[in-house]
Amino acid sequence: MNPIRVGLLGLGTAGGGTYDILLRNREEIARRAGREIHVVAAAVRNLDKARARVGDAIRLGTDPQAVVDATDVEIVVELMGGIEPARSLILSAIRQGKHVVTANKALLALHGNEIFAEAQKQGVMVAFEAAVAGGIPIIKALREGLTANRIQWIAGIINGTSNFILTRMREAGASFAEALAEAQALGYAEADPTFDIEGIDAAHKLTIMAAIAFGMPMHFEQAYTEGISQLTADDIRYAEEFGYRIKLLGICRRTSEGVELRVHPTLIPQQQLIANVNGVMNAVLVRGDAVGSTLYYGAGAGAEPTGSSVVADLVDVTRMHTADPDHRVPHLAFQANRVTEVRVLPISAVRTSYYLRLRAVDRPGVLADVTRILAEQGISIEAMLQREPPQGEQQVDVVILTHRTVESALTAALERIEALDSIAGPVVRIRMEALAS
Amino acid sequence: MNPIRVGLLGLGTAGGGTYDILLRNREEIARRAGREIHVVAAAVRNLDKARARVGDAIRLGTDPQAVVDATDVEIVVELMGGIEPARSLILSAIRQGKHVVTANKALLALHGNEIFAEAQKQGVMVAFEAAVAGGIPIIKALREGLTANRIQWIAGIINGTSNFILTRMREAGASFAEALAEAQALGYAEADPTFDIEGIDAAHKLTIMAAIAFGMPMHFEQAYTEGISQLTADDIRYAEEFGYRIKLLGICRRTSEGVELRVHPTLIPQQQLIANVNGVMNAVLVRGDAVGSTLYYGAGAGAEPTGSSVVADLVDVTRMHTADPDHRVPHLAFQANRVTEVRVLPISAVRTSYYLRLRAVDRPGVLADVTRILAEQGISIEAMLQREPPQGEQQVDVVILTHRTVESALTAALERIEALDSIAGPVVRIRMEALAS
Repeated sequence: MNPIRVGLLGLGTAGGGTYDILLRNREEIARRAGREIHVVAAAVRNLDKARARVGDAIRLGTDPQAVVDATDVEIVVELMGGIEPARSLILSAIRQGKHVVTANKALLALHGNEIFAEAQKQGVMVAFEAAVAGGIPIIKALREGLTANRIQWIAGIINGTSNFILTRMREAGASFAEALAEAQALGYAEADPTFDIEGIDAAHKLTIMAAIAFGMPMHFEQAYTEGISQLTADDIRYAEEFGYRIKLLGICRRTSEGVELRVHPTLIPQQQLIANVNGVMNAVLVRGDAVGSTLYYGAGAGAEPTGSSVVADLVDVTRMHTADPDHRVPHLAFQANRVTEVRVLPISAVRTSYYLRLRAVDRPGVLADVTRILAEQGISIEAMLQREPPQGEQQVDVVILTHRTVESALTAALERIEALDSIAGPVVRIRMEALAS
Repeated sequence: MNPIRVGLLGLGTAGGGTYDILLRNREEIARRAGREIHVVAAAVRNLDKARARVGDAIRLGTDPQAVVDATDVEIVVELMGGIEPARSLILSAIRQGKHVVTANKALLALHGNEIFAEAQKQGVMVAFEAAVAGGIPIIKALREGLTANRIQWIAGIINGTSNFILTRMREAGASFAEALAEAQALGYAEADPTFDIEGIDAAHKLTIMAAIAFGMPMHFEQAYTEGISQLTADDIRYAEEFGYRIKLLGICRRTSEGVELRVHPTLIPQQQLIANVNGVMNAVLVRGDAVGSTLYYGAGAGAEPTGSSVVADLVDVTRMHTADPDHRVPHLAFQANRVTEVRVLPISAVRTSYYLRLRAVDRPGVLADVTRILAEQGISIEAMLQREPPQGEQQVDVVILTHRTVESALTAALERIEALDSIAGPVVRIRMEALAS
């Protein structure tokens, strides 16, 4: 059978990894796919650098549209990143009846609804395994492996940079700034780390997983996003004393009132498997009504882990394009005409438990005031920790773990607590999840 | 579109779970599959019990061949277990051009080569996600998700019964017999637990995974199988002192001389994620050359976890049957004409490191004799632990961790060590794996 012919948009980290895998494992992949996969052209930024890397094996140019338009390109692989021109190039490929593989999570989270609608209209496939959790085949697991299940919730460590920072803060007692600097020195964090440390990258990936899990459109704009830049080494230590680890989790959950969609630092019981996922590794915990809890772990970034998912998509597309389009795996797991709008809950309506840390003047009656306010808001306390004040200091750290409550009640309580004379500064609030059912 | 019509062979644990999921999540599954999946007939052992369970919703009978032959059955789901009549029924279904879904690991490990050859000839699909690791979509991950990779090795906790026993031995300091009795009382172990505790069930599953990972035929008869019935609470405690957990692992590994295929108790560094998989849960760690290490975790048995995988297969078959047969995912991941014979290494040729425990008379020169023999066989020692003999006893436990060596050298050394006057009884030998690369 003829090889299937692929055009690459971008030959950087992900593009280079994809190219290397296709070359090195050509034989192994052909034994599986029943067909060779040839890269015939690539659009790059720096022609000389690209030429030095791939030699004369493929056609190189700087115009991505030319690769999309090339008559010998059957599948367009978009690995440039960013919104434009990636969006226009993908739409152009789709309108020419070409299948698309992409790793572009930001683009899908923001414009996925438009892109999938167009692909549906044209009868082509848009595959995006590499967009979530790098090399872990989590899209395939959610979309095909767990297809029997009503998915109840997903909780994922889906940003390696922030997981590395949190790991270093715990293991080395480093401050956030120190751990970030270490991540940057190792190449795990960008010069501008905002997307990673503020939870935006995780929210992109969460948006995609929620759409697939619940059969709903992408709603990135309604995701609640809170990063790790405000966490202190103290909080990580206190959490540990209670038996918890702090992880930046992306959580989506089905409730009777709507769907939760939230990224924030989260306390997790340390005996949970996902609490022990360290360094730059990713893991996604999925709860289905039939299968119970399953977890998927692996490298969330890097040239070849990303390339592994891109190539898996290429093989899938190569296989599925002979299937009648109605029988292909739908883009968002559910048939396009059965994707339904659902209400995304505002964070104020989310129910969870909380870790609270406050600085209090060390005098009688302060704790009584705090606990009275919590009780009046219907919030019950699971555990409390108060340290003796260090020699010569008048203020102590008080740490409180609450039972489950609705966030609006907690916010109201915190406003009243922060207004107390005996409380110094804002109360630190970190959400807790048992992840058990 | 018309519903796809399914016939069930067996309505016990797995069959009942499958039936319940198809009924309860009918709507959710149809939204994904684009087609309803109807069970139209089932063959059962006890008609009255089955009638009480499913009412008049489906045709019930005691003759499985009648279900296979029924003209309205398009997919045959075999959940009876055992070799015969399951084998003949599946072959009969295939010869009638019907697709098959099965959870029967023993049958596939022993007769998979014959079954897949017949299916290939007839152009039908045989799907078997539920045969390995219950609800975890590990077959799909290996066959499709990691298709870009040259798989280097797999190490799996793929028998929940033995993992439960090992967990209880560690957590409660129980003996093997006590932990087994507890497993039986909880319904986690059969009255005759041989298949589970002697590693046979794990070897069935390992055989299937190795075939898919390496593109080789099933070679259950060449798998090395050693169970957990000889482990003592002492060994588990000593391992812990060195920073290890003992797990029953199924391991397959590609080496330059051939493929390793082995099930045995294994020491794993306790910081490894898979070392922290406890109770009846399963996990499979897969090392690919592109993706690195990925891990898949979940329930390895039970009605609905098994049903979750059976239904996922049903949806896959429903989708893929419109694809031209050459483009479907091949049964063993590799195209049928590209599955190649490989040498399976005998256990004597396997290279790993070892935990050794010996009872020695507490007198000068004993350790010198032992270490000299190891050195003469080219085996170097990584760590050693010797306890003071308890009051009034003349014998001490000596525990030795070795570096990597070939098993034949170790066996030769142990024969010489056991022949020493100063050594009482056989030396306990447990293999160690770092699982790091």
